[in-house]
Amino acid sequence: MRQESDNVDNSNHDQAGINERHRNRMVKAKQIIDAKIEQAQRKAGLIVITTGNGKGKSSSGFGMVIRAMGNGMKAVVVQFIKGAMSTGEEKFLQRFPNEVSFHVMGEGYTWETQNRERDIEKAEAAWKICQQYLSDPTVDLILLDELNIALKYHYLDVNNVIADLQARPAMQHVIITGRGALPELIAIADTVTEMQEVKHAFQNGIVAQAGIEW
Amino acid sequence: MRQESDNVDNSNHDQAGINERHRNRMVKAKQIIDAKIEQAQRKAGLIVITTGNGKGKSSSGFGMVIRAMGNGMKAVVVQFIKGAMSTGEEKFLQRFPNEVSFHVMGEGYTWETQNRERDIEKAEAAWKICQQYLSDPTVDLILLDELNIALKYHYLDVNNVIADLQARPAMQHVIITGRGALPELIAIADTVTEMQEVKHAFQNGIVAQAGIEW
Repeated sequence: MRQESDNVDNSNHDQAGINERHRNRMVKAKQIIDAKIEQAQRKAGLIVITTGNGKGKSSSGFGMVIRAMGNGMKAVVVQFIKGAMSTGEEKFLQRFPNEVSFHVMGEGYTWETQNRERDIEKAEAAWKICQQYLSDPTVDLILLDELNIALKYHYLDVNNVIADLQARPAMQHVIITGRGALPELIAIADTVTEMQEVKHAFQNGIVAQAGIEW
Repeated sequence: MRQESDNVDNSNHDQAGINERHRNRMVKAKQIIDAKIEQAQRKAGLIVITTGNGKGKSSSGFGMVIRAMGNGMKAVVVQFIKGAMSTGEEKFLQRFPNEVSFHVMGEGYTWETQNRERDIEKAEAAWKICQQYLSDPTVDLILLDELNIALKYHYLDVNNVIADLQARPAMQHVIITGRGALPELIAIADTVTEMQEVKHAFQNGIVAQAGIEW
């Protein structure tokens, strides 16, 4: 019956009906969302993991770094794997040494270095730096870029890393990026996103470009 | 047999074996990756979409904005839905008006406005601004934050949006974020990531916090 009466409406009445139904749906959506927000009032330092094969893991981490900086928070970046070439994010963030500390510790991807012992040395040196920040309550947010790779290849012991993460200041946020996040790390994290590749320009013959991949 | 000889190795020999096998795997990996890179030498302005229910869509877009800025590229941000509250990324990027133009066009989420006609007016006004940038070859990268929401609710016609995107300067990159990317838009995009939620702190009673969600 409703359908029939809709059918005889003219276009203006149709639009009015669509708008009214939209409003009713949004009133209900707001009730549900407000109730959930009421349930979620606790604050805590988070462990956020971005993993998976899709594009967006590191860039999402850097987006959170500037969110933190915009809110007057002190941020730190430690890059574990990248670093063979200077990236746009590094060039940009190095302009603000009082707001963000930027450490490029890796010498490039594992298939570029081809030297596991040297990769391990680099990863261990990087983790020593991380340990300092993870015990400094004046640091609000730490991005551990590509740490998942160092853990996946067992360059660092995941149990030692988890122990240091869990001993950090209560309000400190840590973001961990890279493919193949270990299940042990996912288990102790608060927010985890699996970034799935639907398609990638590289498959279509397009080179990695400034502003997008670096 | 190989297994047996491994078993009688002492620890140092084990490590040497692991390191050697790692090197061999990485040499092969490099050959495969280098061959793929050889195939991918074309440069082009890309359409990058980040969609899905997981955290990281907008933050990934903002990460690419600072990548672009670090490489001396001119960036633009147009936010379609967010805007009821000032975000860290907005506060931060507004510091660089000569490097990035930042437009907050929405009045908040659809369940906050509850007014489809007004949402449509705002979306249309936002798209007029986009059209100017999409015809300006001096703009290197445009982030259309939450455009997918405006398209999903039919606030804008997807065919008109696609026509404007496809008529843009050849080297201009466009990043489109938001849940529920329409299949028509995915079809014309170059790189698409579906961000899947594995877990979220909100489910565990933790409020949206500065530096992470805004």
